[in-house]
Amino acid sequence: MSQGIIHHYRKYLPIAEEAIVTLHEGSTPLLPAPRLAEKIFPGIELYLKLEGLNPTGSFKDRGMTYALSKAVESGARGVICASTGNTSAAAAAYAARAGLKAIVVIPEGKIALGKLSQALMHGAVVYTIKGNFDQALVLVREVAATGKVIIVNSINPYRLEGQKTAAFEICDTLGDAPDYHVISVGNAANITAYWAGYKQYHREGKVLTKPKMLGFQASGAAPIVLGRIVKNPETIATAIRIGNPASWKPALAARDESGGLFDKVTDKEILQAYRMLARLEGYFCEPASAACLAGLLKLAKKGFFKKGDRIVATLTGHGLKDPDTAIKNSGKVKRISPKAGEILKGL
Amino acid sequence: MSQGIIHHYRKYLPIAEEAIVTLHEGSTPLLPAPRLAEKIFPGIELYLKLEGLNPTGSFKDRGMTYALSKAVESGARGVICASTGNTSAAAAAYAARAGLKAIVVIPEGKIALGKLSQALMHGAVVYTIKGNFDQALVLVREVAATGKVIIVNSINPYRLEGQKTAAFEICDTLGDAPDYHVISVGNAANITAYWAGYKQYHREGKVLTKPKMLGFQASGAAPIVLGRIVKNPETIATAIRIGNPASWKPALAARDESGGLFDKVTDKEILQAYRMLARLEGYFCEPASAACLAGLLKLAKKGFFKKGDRIVATLTGHGLKDPDTAIKNSGKVKRISPKAGEILKGL
Repeated sequence: MSQGIIHHYRKYLPIAEEAIVTLHEGSTPLLPAPRLAEKIFPGIELYLKLEGLNPTGSFKDRGMTYALSKAVESGARGVICASTGNTSAAAAAYAARAGLKAIVVIPEGKIALGKLSQALMHGAVVYTIKGNFDQALVLVREVAATGKVIIVNSINPYRLEGQKTAAFEICDTLGDAPDYHVISVGNAANITAYWAGYKQYHREGKVLTKPKMLGFQASGAAPIVLGRIVKNPETIATAIRIGNPASWKPALAARDESGGLFDKVTDKEILQAYRMLARLEGYFCEPASAACLAGLLKLAKKGFFKKGDRIVATLTGHGLKDPDTAIKNSGKVKRISPKAGEILKGL
Repeated sequence: MSQGIIHHYRKYLPIAEEAIVTLHEGSTPLLPAPRLAEKIFPGIELYLKLEGLNPTGSFKDRGMTYALSKAVESGARGVICASTGNTSAAAAAYAARAGLKAIVVIPEGKIALGKLSQALMHGAVVYTIKGNFDQALVLVREVAATGKVIIVNSINPYRLEGQKTAAFEICDTLGDAPDYHVISVGNAANITAYWAGYKQYHREGKVLTKPKMLGFQASGAAPIVLGRIVKNPETIATAIRIGNPASWKPALAARDESGGLFDKVTDKEILQAYRMLARLEGYFCEPASAACLAGLLKLAKKGFFKKGDRIVATLTGHGLKDPDTAIKNSGKVKRISPKAGEILKGL
């Protein structure tokens, strides 16, 4: 049983023992996905990193355990973040665990139901603004600049240090790095952290190879692909509805250094991959997570992969984060009278 | 990284390798809860078994991996279950993973949003009836009796075999059994499985002691406490809204053999414990899971515990299963204009 990523990867995440704030995040499954692989390109080896099985249901917990631990070590009284939902859930949970105040700023009406419920339940002060994530982040930076609270968005360097551990875990499980790592991209911190993690393990000789990094954005929120800020980002994948990514430059470096690429997928392609995953492999991710699978399908159609390629896809958040989108995009319930015959005739 | 409970506890869960259906369930955190312990009774040692971090968000995955593996081994084409939600989510997910058909029957309007979204996304055929869980179970038994599909409710013996592994994990982590194991009780299969697991480890000499089993039902759905079937069970804790538990007798045996007890808690007490957990420890469970924490608070007020008592509480499902209840029972969102001053004046 994991006691959390700081205890597991202590050497990489130095901190005073008594400051550690953990919900025993990390050590998430690396699930083989043979049936989905068969649909994408027969002969590839596909693994899913199930980051939705972290305590608050997303990969954000990896960065938040370290950011909150460092906040405690520094004597902070509170933390603040802007969020499309997952960051606020994690910040609120870890702040509660630490006994610190949490303030979160979210774009009005553009956050999935589950994520809002988390921030509220954990007792965060939740502000909504008319505006998008990028505007919320500007506001939060201004408040944090006063020094009264610590910003725990991914511009907090400890967040990325914590998130690197997902790459470590993948290498530790596979025994080497995969050929490709595919991931959905919003604020671009996660792809940056994975690449840093892979490079670090490679530098230390723990793995012999590094993966090519494949990043996918939603068509309506694809600033990195388009090469320009998107003023009004729009996509059903709310977690990556970001028009001006904070980690834009390091994400491009990850692409270039690894020999990877960025591309975009439509909402329709995202929803198709989202359903395909749940039906073929029995795992339910949030829509934003499925963007990377839609990307794999798109690349495979162009003949990008070859037999034997080993691919890891990060599924960033659990499907339960956004039940509304799931219900709108799946089958219907059949009302019946309580008689066995009605079920039997459908068999 | 866990590869699932069957690989981990193979000796206890015999099955042909090629039949194994797993989503890498189990190996869930056993989280120390010092701040909640302090509120309950200063001096106790409290651990939370975070079963909501299983792949479908509840403990049901432990039983379902084994039940579906056995179904595959037997050549079955489909599975069926009645459910208050968590069982149907797990059955649908594991059936999808196995490529089998899943049929689920749920009580109309009495299932949390997240759980319904899971069954639908995983492609199960979902029937609703006007009636409660107990009536749904009668119906499902009748359909399964035809032999066309396999029942995967907890009357399927493999379900309980799988669920025992949670007790094994607790013992493996603590090095011995706890003094008390506290758990919410609906259909009573889980308390039965835990007790079987503790007894088995004790018989084999892996632990020197066994815990006293403390089971809590919701006041409006407390047949075991009242000693009679409850015809119209009612509680906000939908996962334990059951009036005629399938494992009633073995649950009573678990109480008697362990020297434990059953008691009931009100919906108000459940919601209070639910919020307390999220605010003090940063973990968000579904309302039904919090019934056992409400029970601990109730017993502690009566002077039940003493300093040094080591208690494990099973938190059966993730809070994201039921976002509506969370939003109705927590703070409010504050709408502001995007100006830092509005946030700063609240600091």
